[in-house]
Amino acid sequence: MRNVRMEVAYDGSRFFGWQRQDGFLSVQEALETALEGLLGEAVTVHGSGRTDTGVHALRQVASVHVDTKLDDDRLRHACNAHLPEGVVVRRLETCRDDFHPRFDAIGKRYLYVTWTTRFRPPFGRGFAHWVNHPLDLGAVRHAAAAMVGRHDFRAFCATGSDRKSTVRTVRDVRVVARRERFAVVAEADGFLYNMVRILVGTLIDVGRGRLDADCVARALESGARTELGATAPPDGLYLLRVRYPEPCFQGPDRGPRGGAGLFG
Amino acid sequence: MRNVRMEVAYDGSRFFGWQRQDGFLSVQEALETALEGLLGEAVTVHGSGRTDTGVHALRQVASVHVDTKLDDDRLRHACNAHLPEGVVVRRLETCRDDFHPRFDAIGKRYLYVTWTTRFRPPFGRGFAHWVNHPLDLGAVRHAAAAMVGRHDFRAFCATGSDRKSTVRTVRDVRVVARRERFAVVAEADGFLYNMVRILVGTLIDVGRGRLDADCVARALESGARTELGATAPPDGLYLLRVRYPEPCFQGPDRGPRGGAGLFG
Repeated sequence: MRNVRMEVAYDGSRFFGWQRQDGFLSVQEALETALEGLLGEAVTVHGSGRTDTGVHALRQVASVHVDTKLDDDRLRHACNAHLPEGVVVRRLETCRDDFHPRFDAIGKRYLYVTWTTRFRPPFGRGFAHWVNHPLDLGAVRHAAAAMVGRHDFRAFCATGSDRKSTVRTVRDVRVVARRERFAVVAEADGFLYNMVRILVGTLIDVGRGRLDADCVARALESGARTELGATAPPDGLYLLRVRYPEPCFQGPDRGPRGGAGLFG
Repeated sequence: MRNVRMEVAYDGSRFFGWQRQDGFLSVQEALETALEGLLGEAVTVHGSGRTDTGVHALRQVASVHVDTKLDDDRLRHACNAHLPEGVVVRRLETCRDDFHPRFDAIGKRYLYVTWTTRFRPPFGRGFAHWVNHPLDLGAVRHAAAAMVGRHDFRAFCATGSDRKSTVRTVRDVRVVARRERFAVVAEADGFLYNMVRILVGTLIDVGRGRLDADCVARALESGARTELGATAPPDGLYLLRVRYPEPCFQGPDRGPRGGAGLFG
């Protein structure tokens, strides 16, 4: 048996989230089924964290203990040949036996893509959010800056979340706008449940003038979810990268540049 | 009654082609239904030409005679509000009464997008073709150059096509490759049925080494469809632009940059 870690891209609109659940095909189940078909024995795939139904990933990290003579490259090829459409293993490498993608992670980076066209874009449903209103980028950037730092983000958390601590360090919230595309890249040591979607929904509401740009500072102070904006839908959300203390995936990235075409 | 022309973008995967047919929603029917709901009377929308099921358009041109007091801008807004998802009127302007998008057209430009990744891309099904093989661009460009000029393109025509003349002038076949994306932009005074898809399928077969680069010259000489490659699927095909002798759509393009996100 050896432990291998994988870098996985998937189209979230094709799966019922990351986590295995009865009766609905998840990304975890797709990976486990592919490996089981290949290796002839049950395996458990661990991910760096869940993603909700509709949320995409360009570089989710997962690991699995396998008993096979296939080397890393052949195992990756064989796994991809067994996977259904919409999920692909970009890279795969043998790692230390106690590597765990979730417990070892020290940071994540997400991208959220929104189109701000007057009319519903004819293309790209499921891969970008759409707001039929221009956004005030000055106000958005003011609100975004207030999110950066070490704070108690309980206001940014879906109710019902059971995390013990709601303190997180947000390293960066970058706002990029080009023509009618509006993108947010957020990086933190970790995100609470729905945190990125509430963060983006709030920035959009600030940009539209529905909320004032100081609402973020007030919410961090009060902890009140009601100070913030709508939870943005999953369509525009992409897990870009998971960070670890150790260098991972040094080999060439032969997998497809999945979303490259979508982000230009 | 006045004649208006429209610049229309649509996601071809959501419609059964351009042309109205019983029992299947076409783009033409979607436009006619939207206008009829708005104006309260039957209208006939004329297009610059048919597109097949699955073929997309960024700037298809259509015209319709309407009896309304709405000015051009309001008519466009109202029409978009009545249209289903996946089709949008980018621009609309009153034009001379005898303008006809098909008979007046003097040229068309198409884009065809292919991904050449080793594994099936997790994103973008329906919006790009996929070939799991790198392409020899030198050979592709050699074959593409042979297509340019005034030729009898009967070899590039789907059997069963009933056009009287199969002579066309291809002005340009441009091949663009970046990372694992391969795009072909073709411009001509007109295209025969399936001509762009046969042209691209042939270039791909040349690029893979299945056909030699001189097959195009031979096919133009012999007229034999069998000299050429496969008909590429509709997924990657986009009608980019229709040309007319007169200037059209001088106003601002307020419509969404539909595929911008897809082509980078």
